[in-house]
Amino acid sequence: MKDKAVNLKERLDKIVELWSPRVVGEVNDTYIKLVKIKGELAWHRHADEDEMFLVLRGNLRIEMESSTVELSEGDFFVVPQGAPHNPVSEEGCEIILIEPKTTRHTGDTLTERTKSIAEQLKAD
Amino acid sequence: MKDKAVNLKERLDKIVELWSPRVVGEVNDTYIKLVKIKGELAWHRHADEDEMFLVLRGNLRIEMESSTVELSEGDFFVVPQGAPHNPVSEEGCEIILIEPKTTRHTGDTLTERTKSIAEQLKAD
Repeated sequence: MKDKAVNLKERLDKIVELWSPRVVGEVNDTYIKLVKIKGELAWHRHADEDEMFLVLRGNLRIEMESSTVELSEGDFFVVPQGAPHNPVSEEGCEIILIEPKTTRHTGDTLTERTKSIAEQLKAD
Repeated sequence: MKDKAVNLKERLDKIVELWSPRVVGEVNDTYIKLVKIKGELAWHRHADEDEMFLVLRGNLRIEMESSTVELSEGDFFVVPQGAPHNPVSEEGCEIILIEPKTTRHTGDTLTERTKSIAEQLKAD
């Protein structure tokens, strides 16, 4: 990694595709990703990985089995490992994801939108 | 963890003490912390842990042996494991730290400001 800071907004501006997380940093076994989303992904779960969502712009709704978490700019929430969830944003939002490197995009559910780790590691 | 989002600014407002990181989230083996700093900490290193700094407000300078990284609001940088570094902010800043749970506050250097993990886990 170069000895230079990365600006979140500048890095986000390079992302065109929705639902395509990009790895922007790594901290030991954890990836820091940026992603733009709009609409809804799919119900899925990560059996062994917690997943943190931090909203940079817009509104995000994380649907879970027994509750729904609403997030606005500056809000974060950690979906506990094993918990089925579905991220939704009607108007669209930009978020930071913090999750173990082993985390698969849509967990044990395969969708048309599912991105491999190799795809998430690509530069824009 | 309750099924409710946490707002970064609201959580930061509860932090009074400088140089006193507070754990606000956990993602498997990683802690997410908020901290307010002003002045400089101390040169130290974490032998086995990367450490990510994300600036929420203000300006941060991370001094390292062969370079200095300047960060403004919305900028982040990952100090690689093993690299001696010293965080400095003359005017003061508010940051998110992302680091493994094993990370000691000032690494292998003990200072008057050094906080234990137990102290970092306290509610305000």
